[in-house]
Amino acid sequence: MTEVPRTPRTKPKTYPSRANSELETILDIVDRALVCHVATAVDGVPRIAPMVHGRVGMELVLHGSPKSTLLAALANGAEAAVAFTLVDAFVLGRSAMHHSLNYRSVVVFGRGRALDDDEGKARALDALTERVVPGRTRELRPMSRAELDATLVVVLSLAESGAKIRTGPPKDAAEDLDGPWWAGNVPLTLGLGAPVPSPDLPAGVAVPPSVRDLARRVAGGA
Amino acid sequence: MTEVPRTPRTKPKTYPSRANSELETILDIVDRALVCHVATAVDGVPRIAPMVHGRVGMELVLHGSPKSTLLAALANGAEAAVAFTLVDAFVLGRSAMHHSLNYRSVVVFGRGRALDDDEGKARALDALTERVVPGRTRELRPMSRAELDATLVVVLSLAESGAKIRTGPPKDAAEDLDGPWWAGNVPLTLGLGAPVPSPDLPAGVAVPPSVRDLARRVAGGA
Repeated sequence: MTEVPRTPRTKPKTYPSRANSELETILDIVDRALVCHVATAVDGVPRIAPMVHGRVGMELVLHGSPKSTLLAALANGAEAAVAFTLVDAFVLGRSAMHHSLNYRSVVVFGRGRALDDDEGKARALDALTERVVPGRTRELRPMSRAELDATLVVVLSLAESGAKIRTGPPKDAAEDLDGPWWAGNVPLTLGLGAPVPSPDLPAGVAVPPSVRDLARRVAGGA
Repeated sequence: MTEVPRTPRTKPKTYPSRANSELETILDIVDRALVCHVATAVDGVPRIAPMVHGRVGMELVLHGSPKSTLLAALANGAEAAVAFTLVDAFVLGRSAMHHSLNYRSVVVFGRGRALDDDEGKARALDALTERVVPGRTRELRPMSRAELDATLVVVLSLAESGAKIRTGPPKDAAEDLDGPWWAGNVPLTLGLGAPVPSPDLPAGVAVPPSVRDLARRVAGGA
């Protein structure tokens, strides 16, 4: 178990009992989340956007169009705060105050850095595709030079990060425990519908292993 | 149909075809999202946190502990960017480039304002509980004065907001269409596990209507 050192901004101000600094736990949440939310300040004004992400070791991979205000700022070294959130259950207490959600979340702080070498970009983009749909890259044709050139790839260190996790039943006030109110959790589950072939797919192209394996990928929350 | 006017920062720089400014659509996404992600800049440095939210008309309701750095900044009028994201499907194209997610997202820009009158706070907190678990407030005892005093409630106008929505199959390059690669979507579904009563629940307290109705609440994505 590796402990990620807390910094003033990753030290939790509220619910310290929910704080978790285990690197393995942090990376698990990052890897499971379907999307992350990336925030930065442009001329002092906050910006936010949902993005799909990849991970290469301790680096978070973001990508998109160079026209994105937010991504362009990160490519120029702007400071970012990135959140990853999995919601696991509704938590219903006896009072409104003790309602909550069970969740696993991570916040990362760091400065963006644009990748400009082709090999590094291709590896980062492959990692991104693989994280979202494991096994998919080996089913595809290689990326073209034009595709690589059209894509801005930004990385960001995961070194300054921390998790927050709530689990378990509601924590009601002692004086409410014998009251007439139901209390408990309702778990949230993520599942998949049947694959929908593209309308332009030629007959006879079979559903590939990556699609068959997606159910396992989402089983642990997303 | 009401159109929300775009501003320079809600005008999409990328994928303008995904932009949507219909107020009804924006509010539907806000209301369905289990959590939102709230970003602000504190001394020029971005901060982000997942939060549960409520809505009263055109005002977004956030709440939490006064000890939260982010919420306290918003209570003092800081500018915020808030994102709401529903992920609907994996989109698998013939090339890595044409992989995507189908999603519905909203970004809101505005300044926070703390509520300080008890009636307004209680109404905002009720709206928050009702949005997350419809029908729940009428099953609970009223909030106590101490609970109300311990909770910081911040509102933020939804007037400056815009949605982005991707639907439909992958949009592959023309020259890839006859290739051997499977292409299509895999829908994501959100469901519920069976309710888990709190270990300290007295015998004989029945599962209430709000819990029985939760399946309908999450059916449209969350």
